[in-house]
Amino acid sequence: MPKLDSAGFEVLEEDGCYELLGQSSLGRVGVTMDALPAIFPVNYALIELQIVFSTGHGTKLTAALNAAVVAFEADFVNEQGTEAWSVQAIGRAILVDPGSDLEAAAKVAVRALAPVPRRFLVKIRPARISGRRLLPR
Amino acid sequence: MPKLDSAGFEVLEEDGCYELLGQSSLGRVGVTMDALPAIFPVNYALIELQIVFSTGHGTKLTAALNAAVVAFEADFVNEQGTEAWSVQAIGRAILVDPGSDLEAAAKVAVRALAPVPRRFLVKIRPARISGRRLLPR
Repeated sequence: MPKLDSAGFEVLEEDGCYELLGQSSLGRVGVTMDALPAIFPVNYALIELQIVFSTGHGTKLTAALNAAVVAFEADFVNEQGTEAWSVQAIGRAILVDPGSDLEAAAKVAVRALAPVPRRFLVKIRPARISGRRLLPR
Repeated sequence: MPKLDSAGFEVLEEDGCYELLGQSSLGRVGVTMDALPAIFPVNYALIELQIVFSTGHGTKLTAALNAAVVAFEADFVNEQGTEAWSVQAIGRAILVDPGSDLEAAAKVAVRALAPVPRRFLVKIRPARISGRRLLPR
């Protein structure tokens, strides 16, 4: 019997959350900027349970990410609205070490859409992760 | 000549932002909860330049939305990664007046996915809105 939340969505275990995160490549990072919430879409890859995404130097996002605790979210809804899931995570955003194995893996795995290459890779290792899914009816 | 940001995306005018928001129904609300950023996916409709979405009573989101300034984001990427846009807004989240025309319109327009009906409608009239789009190459 799956566990349901008050909205009737199935509450996912941690394993299920990571499995779904591995199926998408578009997520959003939530930060607090000038005491206000802000959301930035990012292209990410899940590598060894870490969310890795690229960003430009000197962007507002980079500034906000200076080892700050950030929110991350990814979701999916099909056209018919019969399949849907969302995963939310929170963790510290850390620059990926240049020359590290993670950097090498991320350069292959992160599909960046920006026409101008984004040089900085940021990783989030979730301290908390949660997710929910629409059960088939 | 379209204006480009540092990542090479086209910077959209306000009209273009609202036009794109009207094309989607899945967005995310960013709030600060317990001094930490959090992101919640929502099904929304754009009604008279207001972002309207439904939420359950007593949820963390409802609590956070108590006339608070929130972030909103919607985006789109096609399979091939050749079409993409994102719109970000910020504004105060206000409960929709019961019995109002906006409530009536939202009940028709907001496509809720949750199996358990969400009774509260919240509106955001963006104080700031911005967006960017991948130019065809």
